[in-house]
Amino acid sequence: MTISLDALYRDLHAHPELSFAETRTAGIVAAHLRDLGLEVTEGVGRTGVVGVLRNGDGPVIALRADMDALPVVEQTGLPYASTVRALGADGVETGVMHACGHDMHVTWLLGALERLVAERGTWSGTVVALFQPAEETIGGAKAMIDDGLLDRFPRPQIVLGQHLTHIPAGVVSLTAGPAMAGADSITVRIHGRGGHGSRPQSTIDPVVTASAIVMRLQTLVSREVQPRDLAVVTVGFLHAGTKSNIIPAEATLGLSVRSLDAGVRARLLDGIRRIVEAECQASGMTVPPEITVDDTAAATINDVAATERLRARFAERFGADDVIDFGTRTGSEDVNEFSTAAGVPLVYWFVGGLDPVAWRTAEAAGRLEEDVPTNHSPFFAPVLHPTIERGVETLVEAALENLGPATR
Amino acid sequence: MTISLDALYRDLHAHPELSFAETRTAGIVAAHLRDLGLEVTEGVGRTGVVGVLRNGDGPVIALRADMDALPVVEQTGLPYASTVRALGADGVETGVMHACGHDMHVTWLLGALERLVAERGTWSGTVVALFQPAEETIGGAKAMIDDGLLDRFPRPQIVLGQHLTHIPAGVVSLTAGPAMAGADSITVRIHGRGGHGSRPQSTIDPVVTASAIVMRLQTLVSREVQPRDLAVVTVGFLHAGTKSNIIPAEATLGLSVRSLDAGVRARLLDGIRRIVEAECQASGMTVPPEITVDDTAAATINDVAATERLRARFAERFGADDVIDFGTRTGSEDVNEFSTAAGVPLVYWFVGGLDPVAWRTAEAAGRLEEDVPTNHSPFFAPVLHPTIERGVETLVEAALENLGPATR
Amino acid sequence: MTISLDALYRDLHAHPELSFAETRTAGIVAAHLRDLGLEVTEGVGRTGVVGVLRNGDGPVIALRADMDALPVVEQTGLPYASTVRALGADGVETGVMHACGHDMHVTWLLGALERLVAERGTWSGTVVALFQPAEETIGGAKAMIDDGLLDRFPRPQIVLGQHLTHIPAGVVSLTAGPAMAGADSITVRIHGRGGHGSRPQSTIDPVVTASAIVMRLQTLVSREVQPRDLAVVTVGFLHAGTKSNIIPAEATLGLSVRSLDAGVRARLLDGIRRIVEAECQASGMTVPPEITVDDTAAATINDVAATERLRARFAERFGADDVIDFGTRTGSEDVNEFSTAAGVPLVYWFVGGLDPVAWRTAEAAGRLEEDVPTNHSPFFAPVLHPTIERGVETLVEAALENLGPATR
Amino acid sequence: MTISLDALYRDLHAHPELSFAETRTAGIVAAHLRDLGLEVTEGVGRTGVVGVLRNGDGPVIALRADMDALPVVEQTGLPYASTVRALGADGVETGVMHACGHDMHVTWLLGALERLVAERGTWSGTVVALFQPAEETIGGAKAMIDDGLLDRFPRPQIVLGQHLTHIPAGVVSLTAGPAMAGADSITVRIHGRGGHGSRPQSTIDPVVTASAIVMRLQTLVSREVQPRDLAVVTVGFLHAGTKSNIIPAEATLGLSVRSLDAGVRARLLDGIRRIVEAECQASGMTVPPEITVDDTAAATINDVAATERLRARFAERFGADDVIDFGTRTGSEDVNEFSTAAGVPLVYWFVGGLDPVAWRTAEAAGRLEEDVPTNHSPFFAPVLHPTIERGVETLVEAALENLGPATR
Repeated sequence: MTISLDALYRDLHAHPELSFAETRTAGIVAAHLRDLGLEVTEGVGRTGVVGVLRNGDGPVIALRADMDALPVVEQTGLPYASTVRALGADGVETGVMHACGHDMHVTWLLGALERLVAERGTWSGTVVALFQPAEETIGGAKAMIDDGLLDRFPRPQIVLGQHLTHIPAGVVSLTAGPAMAGADSITVRIHGRGGHGSRPQSTIDPVVTASAIVMRLQTLVSREVQPRDLAVVTVGFLHAGTKSNIIPAEATLGLSVRSLDAGVRARLLDGIRRIVEAECQASGMTVPPEITVDDTAAATINDVAATERLRARFAERFGADDVIDFGTRTGSEDVNEFSTAAGVPLVYWFVGGLDPVAWRTAEAAGRLEEDVPTNHSPFFAPVLHPTIERGVETLVEAALENLGPATR
Repeated sequence: MTISLDALYRDLHAHPELSFAETRTAGIVAAHLRDLGLEVTEGVGRTGVVGVLRNGDGPVIALRADMDALPVVEQTGLPYASTVRALGADGVETGVMHACGHDMHVTWLLGALERLVAERGTWSGTVVALFQPAEETIGGAKAMIDDGLLDRFPRPQIVLGQHLTHIPAGVVSLTAGPAMAGADSITVRIHGRGGHGSRPQSTIDPVVTASAIVMRLQTLVSREVQPRDLAVVTVGFLHAGTKSNIIPAEATLGLSVRSLDAGVRARLLDGIRRIVEAECQASGMTVPPEITVDDTAAATINDVAATERLRARFAERFGADDVIDFGTRTGSEDVNEFSTAAGVPLVYWFVGGLDPVAWRTAEAAGRLEEDVPTNHSPFFAPVLHPTIERGVETLVEAALENLGPATR
Repeated sequence: MTISLDALYRDLHAHPELSFAETRTAGIVAAHLRDLGLEVTEGVGRTGVVGVLRNGDGPVIALRADMDALPVVEQTGLPYASTVRALGADGVETGVMHACGHDMHVTWLLGALERLVAERGTWSGTVVALFQPAEETIGGAKAMIDDGLLDRFPRPQIVLGQHLTHIPAGVVSLTAGPAMAGADSITVRIHGRGGHGSRPQSTIDPVVTASAIVMRLQTLVSREVQPRDLAVVTVGFLHAGTKSNIIPAEATLGLSVRSLDAGVRARLLDGIRRIVEAECQASGMTVPPEITVDDTAAATINDVAATERLRARFAERFGADDVIDFGTRTGSEDVNEFSTAAGVPLVYWFVGGLDPVAWRTAEAAGRLEEDVPTNHSPFFAPVLHPTIERGVETLVEAALENLGPATR
Repeated sequence: MTISLDALYRDLHAHPELSFAETRTAGIVAAHLRDLGLEVTEGVGRTGVVGVLRNGDGPVIALRADMDALPVVEQTGLPYASTVRALGADGVETGVMHACGHDMHVTWLLGALERLVAERGTWSGTVVALFQPAEETIGGAKAMIDDGLLDRFPRPQIVLGQHLTHIPAGVVSLTAGPAMAGADSITVRIHGRGGHGSRPQSTIDPVVTASAIVMRLQTLVSREVQPRDLAVVTVGFLHAGTKSNIIPAEATLGLSVRSLDAGVRARLLDGIRRIVEAECQASGMTVPPEITVDDTAAATINDVAATERLRARFAERFGADDVIDFGTRTGSEDVNEFSTAAGVPLVYWFVGGLDPVAWRTAEAAGRLEEDVPTNHSPFFAPVLHPTIERGVETLVEAALENLGPATR
């Protein structure tokens, strides 16, 4: 049996599922794992799937892929573009899209497991394949751990994983040490006083207050942190009101905060609280705002020695030109939850998926930021080749680097 | 047969329907009109109802009540509070509430018609009762007219109507000449570039642009119009984004603009366009914003002579203390569409619904604006008595003032 | 002796003096008054001048003109334009200009006194001519009163005065009752933490805080007062910093607030305090802001009966077309200090100074607000004729209306 | 002859002079240089001084100190605090203060030259001492070069210099490669329409526009550059208006921009132009804004090999604990003009001046940014010891490292 990875990827892409709703995806994963002969457990951390591939004594390694999609209306125009709609976290119906490449992550890991099964004569040990739900809401890794992951399955000695990103297909980037920022998701709800749109004087207008908050939050990064420190404060959503002639009573803002340094993080979080509270006071609001940290992802810190070993192996296999180090990313991950909980090293790297020609054109024009659709963009559209092949190879090589030799 | 107006009002209040969806309400109205013996036509202007009460030769008058409710989540805590939910104009599910008193308007007009039927020996002429849909979206009056209202039914010589408002129950306010402002509803859609919440540099953040627009729009009223001119620019809704870690590609704002003077209106509308376009340029947006005037309500101008005649009659009937003139309202109406289309005078007045004790307490504390729930507030909760009685009386008196004498 | 009013006006215009520094002007006034034979007292309220013209028994009236100029760099290009410079209240050198027409006020009053002296056979009573300093800083009238004005000189039975404004020359406007708004001048000083322009993180940037305050203050008028209530909040000056690469420690803002109603005034003043304090907190400032009400002018309320009598007389003398009522002005005055202190009626009116052709051209183009230089504009440039003649006539007629008849 | 460096420093501190006005300082420098027996030339680049110390064949090195002070009102409370006042670049009188330590730079260099003269038996070559004017306005180095510096005096083979900063006294920081950011100083002048403070509708209020510009400029750093790229946009001054009741016609803003990367610099400068122009359009201004880049300082790039040699020597002499590398500074310098013009290496380092106890207290409290007065702060107050000694030693050691050996 050979999986057609192209068909698998296109199918997953066309059927994205939001966090903790990955039931169709999990079913496909579990079926494939059973076909490959692995021990399969579904429902680990609600919708997660664990596959165990035992191959004699030797090291235990974890290979991780995340499965969930995003509330984004796909605009790629691809023949296999998603037309799926679902209710988002805020109860509003939205499009759903694999705008962050988790469909590719699943494809890669299934492809790599197929290779490892086929080549089981060349290595020894145990591979634990983690198909994680809900990475986008930073809850899935923790859910699997809380569901007994480390007790119910072989405990890994290293955690390995990879992410699709907007560098040319075929290129791989590894960063030793701090590889990705920490993230906090924060919901802010402010309470004004609603009323008729023609009588603002009898209301406290939360739309104005929310707008003042957004403008003021910009100053946290522009004025309050060291100019070279990693710091991002994004207001990803802002919702207030239902009708132009009604001043609503409330507004809700969703913030995403990125940082590496604990001091910077504290400064940003304190600053958000300070600004939101003061702006509510400036508006004369008497009900205090609600500021909730919904979830927190730690920074992703790669083991330096294990990363450098892998860098050397990748360079030897793929050529030095295709192995780069683009430095710390401002994006965030919960893959570190597995390594931290197990107390073992992590290596997490990036694999390119962009059409190399389009990338070079944009680079030559100095328009990489403007013209290349990045992760989370409604236009994010990786090319299938050599993206699929390279991602399978990297995972297989990383596994072999950390498994034992053939035992006979 | 006597209608229980209390029960009718409570039932209507508990079952609000959004604009052009007033099918249950229209059914109740039509049934009552038939019970009263009027000629009844349903479906005039989609969900409107017309009842004709003929009583010999004499003047033809129109009495108008509007029927629709608002996308507001009721928070009154009343036993008959609405728990209805529906999809709003933006496709988002919302609560529905009679937060503007149209339930009372329907109750009053049915009560008044019952009285006019009962007392038909005392007057002559024809009463055309207009139960209008979709006043809140400023489309219902026009829909009825476009559906042949003035040709299919007796053409009125005067249009009469009234609105429930947040003055003490029992009190009536009439204003000759400009009684209510004109209104424009405007939708603004701006187009940035979406992307990952941690990589703002590859996006054009529409949340920031929308917030800058809101802050800048304040200056139209604070800096660009004569301080005594009537001018309101409200941003009633602002929606952008679905998830805190995704920078969305678009934001949508809903504006309500109020003015009396054509020059002021032009200045505000031009200013909105100027500000929105410039703020999009300040953000480097390359796709121009879409600015749509969704609907426009003319100012409501009462006929001076007819208003003063009615003021005198009300003062004689109810006592001078209960007949006030609170001046031009910033709210808007489409009742003037009927009088303008027919080329006849209009008198439109306000009837109080607030608990007089609560009102006096708030007034004594100088907190009328803060403490009294106004029209469109989720806490808007008129007392039933004497609100119902007074509104029936005003309508009956206004009708009799403009109908002919008993013909015998 | 006949004064050349043209030459006098041009000379005063070319030599403007700031509030309480009107020594040259006062000297010219005093010399003219002595030439006319009045009793002259200089130094009343620092730089004020009082002239008394006694003409037998009869009513005592006060005619008032203010003398001070403004810290504005004249840009009229007139041959007699001011090139005077002086230190402003903030210690900064600035140009000085008669941008509010007080040079014309002095010219008018001297011209009117010359007429009253020449025609003393036609009237009886006493004229007290008040040449007031420091109207622009709302301190001069009070200074004269505090200096014993009402005890040292005949106590008037009515106070009369007039202001040059941007309506066509020859036209006069009277408004009975509320004629001009009340005004409060407020200085706000905020305290951040200064530092190097390249290290914002070690500072609290008062330039950003001041800007946020300015944007937020707009919402007082746009959201917090009844749309038809008179309310203005202007930030007339904002000063912070000395050099682009130093973040300063402080910023200073100068506000001018206009209102008629005491409740509106309280709401605006409370709102300013609320917003300034909250914005300083939003910036993390630990030193509280200083908010000082520097001076307060009451609203200017004309006596209704006296105003209507004067309107009738003006209409008879000048023709009804040249006597208008443009309603309550948002500008402010301290002329009411005299009438209030004396407990007597006030009539204060406006006299036009604009080239009628230019005015009609701008009006026809709908560009009166944009194209006509108003009081306080660096381009404010009244035409001399018939402005001078009309202003002398109005003052003489107003005096004669309120003085006694010829006694013989 | 031995200079008392303490007395010299206190005297210079008490008598600061603004850029290109350093005549007293230059006189003191020239007198000391003559006392030491150097060839002295004054007036090089207006107020600069060059001293040449020849000591046989060998390398030619340049040692550079800058002499100018800042328009800052000193608030240190020191017995030798400055009370000097002068007119700033904007024509406004201001305090003057050595808030950036150039008084210490002069003291150090004179002290080092005294040592090099005294120890001339231990080295060979030529020392060119550059006492530069106008570093704060980034014009002095260029002025000296334009005045023939490299032709009229021995041409150096390396340029050496040092800056006092807010790290503990005794500590030295060297950074190889990019040591300080590039800087652009930009003046923005916007043109509204002035008028009376009570009539905003006839004006275009530049105070509001300037404030909107300041708020919007924050988004360049918060949204438009990569979060780890060095980028600062500071509005160091903002001036508009003279009186609270006059709306001014203009506002002026002074910006300081910092960057290392040419692409980031272009993005910031383009962004400033885009935002300023769009905000003026949002206000309806018809006269375009003036945006002037007043001066540009290139990034300060240290020669890697020469820096590392010096680091080793410093570590050996002072102990490794006192030699740190705090990385690229966001501050800017024009010292690189000398090395670039001469085409030779540069080494530029930082020497601490803070009371070590105060520093450790602040560090322990996590309040280094808040509690330690940095360069340009009105509270900047270095301790004299061991600051003076260490700065003299570093300069002597750096000179000896780059001069030749004793020739005999």
